[in-house]
Amino acid sequence: MATMETVKIEETAKAMETSGTAGATGAAGAIGSAGAAGKGERVLARDAGNYIGEDIVLEGWVHNVRSLGGLSFLLLRDRTGVIQCVGDAAGHAAEIDRLPTESVVRVYGRVRADSRAPGGVEVEVAGTEVINASIENVPFEINKNGINAGLDVQLDNRVISLRHATAQAIFRVEAEIVRIFREYLRSQGFIEVFTPKIVASGTEGGSALFPVDYFGRRAFLAQSPQFYKQMAVGAGFERVFEVGHAYRAEEHNTSRHLNEYVSLDLEMGFIKDEGDVMDVEEGFIRSLLSELERTRKADFDTCGAKIPVLPPEARIPRLRFSEVVAILKDEYGLDLSRRTDLDPEGERLICSYCAEKLGSEFVFVTHFPRSARPMYTMPDENDPKLSRSFDLLFRGLEVTTGGQRIHKYDMLVESIKARGLNPATFEHYLKAFTHGMPPHGGLAIGLERITARLLGLGNVREASLFPRDRDRLTP
Amino acid sequence: MATMETVKIEETAKAMETSGTAGATGAAGAIGSAGAAGKGERVLARDAGNYIGEDIVLEGWVHNVRSLGGLSFLLLRDRTGVIQCVGDAAGHAAEIDRLPTESVVRVYGRVRADSRAPGGVEVEVAGTEVINASIENVPFEINKNGINAGLDVQLDNRVISLRHATAQAIFRVEAEIVRIFREYLRSQGFIEVFTPKIVASGTEGGSALFPVDYFGRRAFLAQSPQFYKQMAVGAGFERVFEVGHAYRAEEHNTSRHLNEYVSLDLEMGFIKDEGDVMDVEEGFIRSLLSELERTRKADFDTCGAKIPVLPPEARIPRLRFSEVVAILKDEYGLDLSRRTDLDPEGERLICSYCAEKLGSEFVFVTHFPRSARPMYTMPDENDPKLSRSFDLLFRGLEVTTGGQRIHKYDMLVESIKARGLNPATFEHYLKAFTHGMPPHGGLAIGLERITARLLGLGNVREASLFPRDRDRLTP
Repeated sequence: MATMETVKIEETAKAMETSGTAGATGAAGAIGSAGAAGKGERVLARDAGNYIGEDIVLEGWVHNVRSLGGLSFLLLRDRTGVIQCVGDAAGHAAEIDRLPTESVVRVYGRVRADSRAPGGVEVEVAGTEVINASIENVPFEINKNGINAGLDVQLDNRVISLRHATAQAIFRVEAEIVRIFREYLRSQGFIEVFTPKIVASGTEGGSALFPVDYFGRRAFLAQSPQFYKQMAVGAGFERVFEVGHAYRAEEHNTSRHLNEYVSLDLEMGFIKDEGDVMDVEEGFIRSLLSELERTRKADFDTCGAKIPVLPPEARIPRLRFSEVVAILKDEYGLDLSRRTDLDPEGERLICSYCAEKLGSEFVFVTHFPRSARPMYTMPDENDPKLSRSFDLLFRGLEVTTGGQRIHKYDMLVESIKARGLNPATFEHYLKAFTHGMPPHGGLAIGLERITARLLGLGNVREASLFPRDRDRLTP
Repeated sequence: MATMETVKIEETAKAMETSGTAGATGAAGAIGSAGAAGKGERVLARDAGNYIGEDIVLEGWVHNVRSLGGLSFLLLRDRTGVIQCVGDAAGHAAEIDRLPTESVVRVYGRVRADSRAPGGVEVEVAGTEVINASIENVPFEINKNGINAGLDVQLDNRVISLRHATAQAIFRVEAEIVRIFREYLRSQGFIEVFTPKIVASGTEGGSALFPVDYFGRRAFLAQSPQFYKQMAVGAGFERVFEVGHAYRAEEHNTSRHLNEYVSLDLEMGFIKDEGDVMDVEEGFIRSLLSELERTRKADFDTCGAKIPVLPPEARIPRLRFSEVVAILKDEYGLDLSRRTDLDPEGERLICSYCAEKLGSEFVFVTHFPRSARPMYTMPDENDPKLSRSFDLLFRGLEVTTGGQRIHKYDMLVESIKARGLNPATFEHYLKAFTHGMPPHGGLAIGLERITARLLGLGNVREASLFPRDRDRLTP
């Protein structure tokens, strides 16, 4: 009976519904999805197809309302997708027409199969009820393929922009990345820890720190859990990971920087060298890609992104910084020979090179000059100007930084002094090295960065629910 | 051949080894546990029994060294437990005797079964190697049943005190509580979110906040993710959870307060009332107890604690605040009739009552006076002086606070004004209520509190790796 032919709406609805059906959150909606109809309980959009011929109750947001040939169509949206509800002029069409967009409503109706409806089912409306009306016009429409507003306006109205199918997909993917990170590390003998974010001193001697007034004492927000995860290794846990906020008071205001971000950290003891740490990261990346393919493929489709593939037989390439500099000069005429780190252009080009020539969208860059890395980085015993450090680059962006750390007390004190820093500042950290610290190393992955890169987002802010940057402190 | 009879050491070793064998972290130690011997790779203490008659390499900390009848015994500790290594006077006894306690060492040797050794195996030492010597005496011994030092001294030397078998058990349990929380909520259709901890204003109008200097602007550390998790519900995620830090600048310095703690938060939309939220918490608690029984029983034994049991047929009792006040007066002569909340004594007594009379160590207290709850709490429509709120008490302590929230814009503005607060302060929060906010509610569980209560710890600081309190900002 339904004959709605508005292609655009159908497309949006399909995109959302597909991403919803993929099982966003495991056994999503255990409540209200089994035998709910008989009890008058809410049925989720995704599950309506299980109730053909039955009377059900739906609850959600008014995604769109359209009239066509005496019929009124309500697209109702919940966390699992969009479902089409229909009323005719003799029945509930007028009621549907009056529903304000984005209001929260309850719909009573009977489910029927209709191959022309998005998702293959529609609900013949027997009644509607406004639970909480939208009392203001939406600042931009979220029932189209894209959002017709700039990123700043979207972030200013975050509760609205997040309702868009693409945003929902982004955060389903992000949550899944974190789940896979934790589960992979647990399978490798790591334990989850929580370390303090209010600290007495920074890991780098005091730059780019946000000051906190701690009962009248000057404290700071932690730039990373670096010292504490090392201390946890030395405290006998050996292999630890943490998913937590990190804070950088950097003035940068670019598409790749956030001042508050989520850091996926790990640290492991009893390693041979930084290669052991890269092995763990490579294991995680392989697990990540295969799990995302299994659970979040539809969300990648919604975002128009492709899940990268790693050839099962080949490792992620590991290139020394000096090799990368040579490749960039020979292949692209880019001269970074005087630098101690890659610049954005260099990161982009070496990633192109690896994708084209080595068949990998990921590449480890190793052996950075020691001067470019923090004081706790283990020097390379073959060339003390180099360090046992690495970055992981992916699609033109550094998404991980890591390495082996110094585990000998005397060497660490020397390294601190060589930076012109005062060992007394690091008293509590240094103490951990006086009672048997094993050789160890670790890494940190920027969650929003890897999410943005995987999904092809232009700005890392799109992967942060409520981003904090140089100018943004609200909402 | 080994005849060590020092009971105390054996006991400690057994306690650690038992807790280790329970599989602290799932498939702990995938690296170094399978076929490691042949390749000269590290074997974990827990796995040595798989290599009887083979030559292996062990790495870990020097837990204890003892000489007895011409033999020297090294108890070597790693994250999986303690293993006994033996050298005789003709071989490596002198070498063992020289190993400083808590140094990191490598031991080469052959595994043999010995029913008298802790764990049933011991390693005949063929050589030792000091990887990183302990260069200072330990401030207290950690190879005995307890630590002979006050809590402050233990926290000052946290990297040492955490190496004790009991501390290791505590944090294995804590990590497991978090894992179970996340997995249970995912099974119920919840999605994990990360919300900002740097905020422009507090949830309670400005008290007990730590100020942050945010690029010259005054900001604060979030007391809870309250506003943001509600906004995430309204942003279409419907059911969200977060595990993150929360900050309270309270001057309290008691055994139950931390100024930085980990909050297990959830928020859910499309609820009937706060009963739906309590149902989810009860489901989590049941999952928690059965999973802890399955995976962490040995750690509870190490801590001398019992995992509580909930009768499968009965719900956790739900008592109104007014009922609790009446019970306390009738049963214990404690008069709280002029109060709007329980005091510590009241919490302790009502928990005793419920354990004895109702067979539950958990109890929900509901319908607190509205004046005692935050401005976003939904009033009870039957008695507007009461609120749709609840606490979960466990073994004498409040471990959860939750309730239904106001979802109507006008009611929320009224509630803010009634507290003498200015709605303009809450501009960004209020905006979320203008575009269709579903009825919703949620709760927050204090991670260190529930860990401490489950394990019978006297002080919540023992469940924090590096606690922050009124006086403590280091290590």
